[in-house]
Amino acid sequence: MDDYSRSQRLASEFLGSAFLLATVVGSGIMAETLPGSNVAVQLLCNSTATGAILFVLITMLGPISGAHFNPAVTVAFFLRGEIDRNEAAFFILMQIAGGVCGVLATHLMFDQSVMQISLKLRDGPALWFSEIIATFGLVATILLTLKANASAVPTSVALYIAAAYWFTASTSFANPAVTIARGFSDTFAGINPANVPAFIVAQLVGAVLAVYVCRFLLAQKRDKVSAKAPAAAE
Amino acid sequence: MDDYSRSQRLASEFLGSAFLLATVVGSGIMAETLPGSNVAVQLLCNSTATGAILFVLITMLGPISGAHFNPAVTVAFFLRGEIDRNEAAFFILMQIAGGVCGVLATHLMFDQSVMQISLKLRDGPALWFSEIIATFGLVATILLTLKANASAVPTSVALYIAAAYWFTASTSFANPAVTIARGFSDTFAGINPANVPAFIVAQLVGAVLAVYVCRFLLAQKRDKVSAKAPAAAE
Amino acid sequence: MDDYSRSQRLASEFLGSAFLLATVVGSGIMAETLPGSNVAVQLLCNSTATGAILFVLITMLGPISGAHFNPAVTVAFFLRGEIDRNEAAFFILMQIAGGVCGVLATHLMFDQSVMQISLKLRDGPALWFSEIIATFGLVATILLTLKANASAVPTSVALYIAAAYWFTASTSFANPAVTIARGFSDTFAGINPANVPAFIVAQLVGAVLAVYVCRFLLAQKRDKVSAKAPAAAE
Amino acid sequence: MDDYSRSQRLASEFLGSAFLLATVVGSGIMAETLPGSNVAVQLLCNSTATGAILFVLITMLGPISGAHFNPAVTVAFFLRGEIDRNEAAFFILMQIAGGVCGVLATHLMFDQSVMQISLKLRDGPALWFSEIIATFGLVATILLTLKANASAVPTSVALYIAAAYWFTASTSFANPAVTIARGFSDTFAGINPANVPAFIVAQLVGAVLAVYVCRFLLAQKRDKVSAKAPAAAE
Repeated sequence: MDDYSRSQRLASEFLGSAFLLATVVGSGIMAETLPGSNVAVQLLCNSTATGAILFVLITMLGPISGAHFNPAVTVAFFLRGEIDRNEAAFFILMQIAGGVCGVLATHLMFDQSVMQISLKLRDGPALWFSEIIATFGLVATILLTLKANASAVPTSVALYIAAAYWFTASTSFANPAVTIARGFSDTFAGINPANVPAFIVAQLVGAVLAVYVCRFLLAQKRDKVSAKAPAAAE
Repeated sequence: MDDYSRSQRLASEFLGSAFLLATVVGSGIMAETLPGSNVAVQLLCNSTATGAILFVLITMLGPISGAHFNPAVTVAFFLRGEIDRNEAAFFILMQIAGGVCGVLATHLMFDQSVMQISLKLRDGPALWFSEIIATFGLVATILLTLKANASAVPTSVALYIAAAYWFTASTSFANPAVTIARGFSDTFAGINPANVPAFIVAQLVGAVLAVYVCRFLLAQKRDKVSAKAPAAAE
Repeated sequence: MDDYSRSQRLASEFLGSAFLLATVVGSGIMAETLPGSNVAVQLLCNSTATGAILFVLITMLGPISGAHFNPAVTVAFFLRGEIDRNEAAFFILMQIAGGVCGVLATHLMFDQSVMQISLKLRDGPALWFSEIIATFGLVATILLTLKANASAVPTSVALYIAAAYWFTASTSFANPAVTIARGFSDTFAGINPANVPAFIVAQLVGAVLAVYVCRFLLAQKRDKVSAKAPAAAE
Repeated sequence: MDDYSRSQRLASEFLGSAFLLATVVGSGIMAETLPGSNVAVQLLCNSTATGAILFVLITMLGPISGAHFNPAVTVAFFLRGEIDRNEAAFFILMQIAGGVCGVLATHLMFDQSVMQISLKLRDGPALWFSEIIATFGLVATILLTLKANASAVPTSVALYIAAAYWFTASTSFANPAVTIARGFSDTFAGINPANVPAFIVAQLVGAVLAVYVCRFLLAQKRDKVSAKAPAAAE
């Protein structure tokens, strides 16, 4: 990432977040408005399109900015000391701005009123617990896969989200920028802005938990460290 | 590509465009004519089949001709100075000819009248804006992925198109040759020939925009360039 | 393949063909008998399951026998001089035997009568032309991908077949052993044995065409050959 | 795996089994409760989500514990002498405990009563034969792919299971820990506990068969061994 200037890195986070939200919201609108379908088919179209674009965006923008597109991921890297506070703050701003712009552009593409506020209620402890699990799993996927096989990160994140749409009751937002941006769309993927803060708290809890669980899972063995030079033990 | 003669390169563009259009139009006919389905399921079958064949065609024909199959992509490479004017013109002719032949062959396979003109209207600013976004995203995917991880281009293009079917209101034609060829099929994937020119203009606008945005995103840092020899800075 | 004995190679062709047919026929039965579905969804389940198992089987058995599982593919390699007549004949026998056993085992798994004869008519020039195109595309995919990027063959064959189910009117049998074996199942994937011979002729025509088209596409440039030693020109 | 302590390995098996079961059970609940869908669509959502998470989990946890998540797989490796009896026993305990915890957490996410006992009957020789075939195929996929192309194991296992959902009448449990855990969920994916033991017996039969068939398929040629040093013959 040091090969790229800060303005390039921030543009990368903005562009990726915009296309991510366009896909989440646009595929929901498309599936919902095509006649005769049922909600399971709509969610299948929504989840596969989102998984597909995640692979594309992480692959093409990863070398520029790391392809976070997600404040929960940026916070996790900050806790691990892999991004500084200043850069992290700019990243999060760009993720939110990009996400909101992506939603507005999608409304334009589908000939809808550009500014909307979602009325869809997504509330209650079951959904909050879902978001903790969803974000825990997402951050654990990223941290463990970076260590296990870094070249598989785009595929793993894509498939994790495509699956998590289905195994969590909340359809796995798992991303505070996505959550805020979806507040601005009164369509299939929307969320009432009043429900956004609790989702974000749950997502951050999940992300922090994942950082600590991965620290345990990836810790080097004590005897190994003493037997070899640290550099060789990796 | 220099390992192959011009006639091999042009045959590659023809063959790839023909199979691409056969898949776009054929999977639409198949999904539409199977009894009892709804439009969301039909578009899912259409989009996954198209994504699948794009991976296949780009992988197998990429080393021969670069696997453009798309005048907007050829124009983007021409703007970047990676293909000369003469070769580009032949490529575009072959893409259109291959695409139209693919459509006619598909009509034969499905026992339909070979020559058709689509009556399906695809018109208005929302769809044109969709095509700008769709083609911008496709060309950006190609240019950024070539730099980030060239071996991922077939997968990324396939998944980008599979997703873009869903997040654009136009179902993401994103390809002037595809647009012209689909004018010759009065089936699920058709487009009224009167609507073709505006689509092509929008696609070229998106492609040119992508070339300039990617130029910014991939520009080398000034200090880096001065510190190292250009060849090593890559 | 020389690392393995002939009995291992033949067992590999038998096992792969059996699992391929179990998937083609079994996923058809499963999709057809689940209540409330429509034919487009059934074919989507059928085509994605078949594509998935093809990746698995070609990856795991490729090093043992080359993972043909298809007399049309074996004939193509014979025409190219890459398998001798004797071995090819044994391969084809094993592919047919494995395919038929796979069908019978699937009937057992679904608690159906083991021996069946399909009554489903699949007839007429449109379907025969479909099988020519389908098999041409399959053999071209294999030959061109082996040259372009051999490690992508399992993915490409899987995605080609998943797409070809949809873009051909015949749902792309593209395999004489599969065609014969499907004659023994009066279920979703069946074909009336009276329609089998014409399908096989069409498939062999497509395979032979592909061998010649690929010979042209992959021929080395005359000047290149004269400038370099043949071995280095590859 | 020796880079990780036993507690890390066991935590890996627990975590992977928990997420696997959350996906199997959660995606079933989600698909079943969305209004208007049919069983084929539900099973498609269930099978694709399960395949997706398997790729993710095997990729990220494979280097830590080998990513068995399945007593039948652990037994197969024990028969091959690749895991000792003591470690195998702990693995199996963790797989069952993780699986059950994953089911209970999923009930919490979907706001259901945490403790459930399934009433869904899955019984009879056709289903038992299905489980033999399903587990035979899974273990053969793992053993043959490890030898053919170890980096493809996560993809192959994911796609094998996604396909086997469809080509076996039992929807391919193929995993004793999954079978036990699904006994605790009276939802789409449940199984009556009275039917669990027969499933487990069938799964172990399939696993043992696969070990012996793969031993034959992968045996080195006699003449090869005598001609070369054993190390070079691999």
